[in-house]
Amino acid sequence: MAGIKMASELPSMTLKPIGIVRKGIKQAAVKRDWEKKVSDIIINTSLTEALDGLEEFSHIVVLYWMHQAVSGEVPLKIHPRGKQELPLLGLFATRTPNRPNRIGIATVRLLERQGNILRVEGLDAIEGTPVIDIKPYIPGYDSVANARVPPWITSR
Amino acid sequence: MAGIKMASELPSMTLKPIGIVRKGIKQAAVKRDWEKKVSDIIINTSLTEALDGLEEFSHIVVLYWMHQAVSGEVPLKIHPRGKQELPLLGLFATRTPNRPNRIGIATVRLLERQGNILRVEGLDAIEGTPVIDIKPYIPGYDSVANARVPPWITSR
Repeated sequence: MAGIKMASELPSMTLKPIGIVRKGIKQAAVKRDWEKKVSDIIINTSLTEALDGLEEFSHIVVLYWMHQAVSGEVPLKIHPRGKQELPLLGLFATRTPNRPNRIGIATVRLLERQGNILRVEGLDAIEGTPVIDIKPYIPGYDSVANARVPPWITSR
Repeated sequence: MAGIKMASELPSMTLKPIGIVRKGIKQAAVKRDWEKKVSDIIINTSLTEALDGLEEFSHIVVLYWMHQAVSGEVPLKIHPRGKQELPLLGLFATRTPNRPNRIGIATVRLLERQGNILRVEGLDAIEGTPVIDIKPYIPGYDSVANARVPPWITSR
């Protein structure tokens, strides 16, 4: 019956972009390519007021739609970053953009807010990416101490 | 012209649930009510294989659809947690569930994976919540050191 309950909620699960990434990276890449990259997030002007107070936070969490990822069916198992020497893993154990729902999340430094424009550092999103949510980064809620990760995460 | 570009991407921005929260909290509440709460995330069995390797991570990031939030137009400015004594802020400066796109994110401890069931601790999601993505929590990507937050965050 769970399937029926969930299906009934589908009609409301449609996303509307709230903004777009400008000066984004050129393509999905490795961390050194984006960690110091400065990008702008242009929020729809109808939502400018909804940003008030965000400048009090040093960091924000950006949710975006990975519009260049593969659409349709996605492979359930992959090698992280396409590297055959890394283990074959379920897609949910990785950060691949090719996911059932192509939402990316990135924690970035908020350098400046000017009206409807957020200037951020460290955004791993391609130029023209639709932005779907902005949240303040809250240590202790969004972070945990001493998290364990498998060895492949830190391999090059 | 940015508006036209973004509108053209709308058709693909539809979410499909990948699972559902069971043994979830009864209602949106304060942190002490959920930080030790043990919930189950039941992933659709067609996606079971896509979880392989997730058990190597101590923590995961759960993206879910806040199905009980207000639908339609949302207020752009609010008092966090409905408290009049807290400043009036833009919704994006808060974690209110009443957002243009009702996506919640929670970083939780992964206690156990059994097939398509993830048992987690600390999930701030109501019983029956549709789950839309699961990502491994990666310190340094998902966390930052010395983030600054405004004083109202820690007020009771």
